[in-house]
Amino acid sequence: MSEIIELLRGRLGERVSLGDEDRAAHSHDYWALTALRSSRGQPPPQVAAVVRPADTSEVSWVLARCHETGTPVIPYGLGSGVCGAIMGRPDAVVLSLEGLTGLHHLDEHNGTARFGAGTRGSDAEAAVAAEGFTLGHQPQSIGVSTVGGWVATRASGQFSTAYGNIEDLITDIEVVLADGRVLRTATTPRSSTGPDLRQLFLGSEGTLGVITEVGFSLIRRPESTAGQAFHFVDMEAGLEAIRVVVQSGWAPPVARLYDPRESLHHFPEDCPEGRCALLWVHEGPVPRVEVEVDAVARICADLGGESLNPSTVDQWFEHRNRVSPWESFFERGIVLDTIEVGCSWDRAGELYRRAVSSCSRVDGVLSVSAHSSHSYRAGTALYFTFLARPDDGSLMENTYLECWAAVMDAVGEVGGVISHHHGIGRVRRGYLAEQLGPVGLDLLRSIKGALDPRAILNPGALIPD
Amino acid sequence: MSEIIELLRGRLGERVSLGDEDRAAHSHDYWALTALRSSRGQPPPQVAAVVRPADTSEVSWVLARCHETGTPVIPYGLGSGVCGAIMGRPDAVVLSLEGLTGLHHLDEHNGTARFGAGTRGSDAEAAVAAEGFTLGHQPQSIGVSTVGGWVATRASGQFSTAYGNIEDLITDIEVVLADGRVLRTATTPRSSTGPDLRQLFLGSEGTLGVITEVGFSLIRRPESTAGQAFHFVDMEAGLEAIRVVVQSGWAPPVARLYDPRESLHHFPEDCPEGRCALLWVHEGPVPRVEVEVDAVARICADLGGESLNPSTVDQWFEHRNRVSPWESFFERGIVLDTIEVGCSWDRAGELYRRAVSSCSRVDGVLSVSAHSSHSYRAGTALYFTFLARPDDGSLMENTYLECWAAVMDAVGEVGGVISHHHGIGRVRRGYLAEQLGPVGLDLLRSIKGALDPRAILNPGALIPD
Repeated sequence: MSEIIELLRGRLGERVSLGDEDRAAHSHDYWALTALRSSRGQPPPQVAAVVRPADTSEVSWVLARCHETGTPVIPYGLGSGVCGAIMGRPDAVVLSLEGLTGLHHLDEHNGTARFGAGTRGSDAEAAVAAEGFTLGHQPQSIGVSTVGGWVATRASGQFSTAYGNIEDLITDIEVVLADGRVLRTATTPRSSTGPDLRQLFLGSEGTLGVITEVGFSLIRRPESTAGQAFHFVDMEAGLEAIRVVVQSGWAPPVARLYDPRESLHHFPEDCPEGRCALLWVHEGPVPRVEVEVDAVARICADLGGESLNPSTVDQWFEHRNRVSPWESFFERGIVLDTIEVGCSWDRAGELYRRAVSSCSRVDGVLSVSAHSSHSYRAGTALYFTFLARPDDGSLMENTYLECWAAVMDAVGEVGGVISHHHGIGRVRRGYLAEQLGPVGLDLLRSIKGALDPRAILNPGALIPD
Repeated sequence: MSEIIELLRGRLGERVSLGDEDRAAHSHDYWALTALRSSRGQPPPQVAAVVRPADTSEVSWVLARCHETGTPVIPYGLGSGVCGAIMGRPDAVVLSLEGLTGLHHLDEHNGTARFGAGTRGSDAEAAVAAEGFTLGHQPQSIGVSTVGGWVATRASGQFSTAYGNIEDLITDIEVVLADGRVLRTATTPRSSTGPDLRQLFLGSEGTLGVITEVGFSLIRRPESTAGQAFHFVDMEAGLEAIRVVVQSGWAPPVARLYDPRESLHHFPEDCPEGRCALLWVHEGPVPRVEVEVDAVARICADLGGESLNPSTVDQWFEHRNRVSPWESFFERGIVLDTIEVGCSWDRAGELYRRAVSSCSRVDGVLSVSAHSSHSYRAGTALYFTFLARPDDGSLMENTYLECWAAVMDAVGEVGGVISHHHGIGRVRRGYLAEQLGPVGLDLLRSIKGALDPRAILNPGALIPD
């Protein structure tokens, strides 16, 4: 390693950091299992160095040197991924995007903006909000994730039901390939000039290239925003309301249905016990929001929904990005995680019941709950949360993996996708082969071989060995 | 060739056709230049055979044999492409998808349907219409193109401004790879399980795999449809109205703005000479259509639009898919074509003027006109039509290529994409390198090498040598 470190230091100097704390801090993401192991005195291996290029040309230079020397490179945004896509190894360097930040360009007429990939999501949103726009992308992680990370993980935001996911919100990207070559895609909104090359990098989790810039097609700040809420007898009834609304052509950006456990947890004063809270946010021109609010209310009432205090929507807005640190649970012997999956409408009820039931049977499980938070004409996403406290604290890791297996197996049995928007990383890597099938997996490996023939980019993430 | 023909005949028998007429009919698409040459007694070379597999497993078997023997394969739907992606060569076989037709599955609850890739668009639309749905994809070619061809070319329909283009309307695809392996993608609406593998084949123009099935996320037949029309002083003014409507969050499926020449041609009795006709179609739930009609009318009026007889929208609906055969022009010594490109809003006016002006200067040009027919928050598509009658009939091909060059060069100068939805084929192949840039082109070639290492799939189309 010392040769490549010396080489990189020759150009980047102190921006090739060898400090213990720095390397430790960049040798993991926010995966619960890594955090659990660290809390038990078993932190992940450390990378050899943290490299901080200042711009695209330095990223290109660094990658070219790593390519020549076969040095593994782990691209790093803000480390908020929850699937273990970032994991230290002593033969690797972390390539931090923290030097590639800020708004490069905002065009009010076209409604477009371009950012350095390392820009924090909330900074990007603030920059466009100052000009009367929104990115339309509001992940819970917006304060701790980067715009490049959104692309690399195929992220979703809380307003996706109207505005789409990250792949629907970007125009162009700039990517540095494994050997240092720089790809810039066309800035126009749509084209038919061969396959869409951006798609290779959406969801690539750092394994196919390093995203250095992201262009967005912005949304003008809506004229009007309105919230309303209902409660339903069970998940099936609430899911049916979302299905009918979305398939009828209405487009509320937010449609969140909580199961009884989460409804009671979030809205203890408003939602009757045992009922499922369904929250809607409507946005757009005033007259459209007005008719949409009425139409959605009618659909909900027709399908057995009862009115819920609309302040629940305000409560959600206020608390929506609050997350307790893993460690506060580990201290109490509790292991936990969230698992988001997707499926068609006809399977959503069964998948919910089966996953909850199966995961609940794991020894030590305290609770399993879920909500639906991203919907489409053809189906929805279910976002499970489990907490477990095994009697024997040394079994926490086992329990964690068993809970994951219970949910993943339910997806396999019922039919669906193993990740809606968090990605694969390492936690789902063992399930990817079944998801993609042998041909799909081979295809992914072929692409990896074509784009990164020396396999230097984020080895161990996403693609099963 | 005789060996592979014998091999294929051993399993498919008479479905490996060697007839002259059959081979000639399958050795071209609907590219104007091929038609011009054919009308001059210079038809394209013929393929060695037309192969008609009956199902996916036969497609797989045929491709495996062609892969083993290094035999070029040209996938063929209904031959309505207009860019020359289909071109006979004596060492190749055409793989016709005509045996892979029909509705395999329609799910009313999820609003999904799956078709054999060779299904004619209008048949697919009729099949889902019978159950109260629409595909949401209405290309002018709907009666002469296949659902697989839509995916292979990254097609757009006339209702795209609300419903999106083909990549937004499909769920899953089945593709046979060059060596015969069969890929089936997940049927769920969205996932984050690595790069979206469907995207490799959207726009691949037969060069990366053979699409055998296409699943759609259907749209329920809208409760209400309304049309309205306006006329504006020039293209810039009309484009501004579309921009403001789309960026305000309204979503009319159809927004078509014709320049003065096309306005007069299509609506001679209604649109004042020199003005630009702008047609809107609104669809959806009754109350939303009502408020959208009002809001769009107000925006148009505010921006100087004057009311145009709404029957112009009915006229458009009636005539929208009518196309005169190339030959009826060639007989009169006229060569012509359509060229669709895309650009951001701020460049659309300039691109329109520059392309019209530059193409008009080509010797023999009779008319150049355009309309905008697919719009986005960040930009729009311009669809040019040129007609030329060179004094010297032997120069028709030259004139044709000069007109193309004039428009392509204007795109290069102003900035934009060389194709919005027709694709590359052969007519744009010489312009693709500049569009993608050297790294983009290399990337496309790397993918080609990874997916089709023996380069048997549709050689000569899309990817420059």
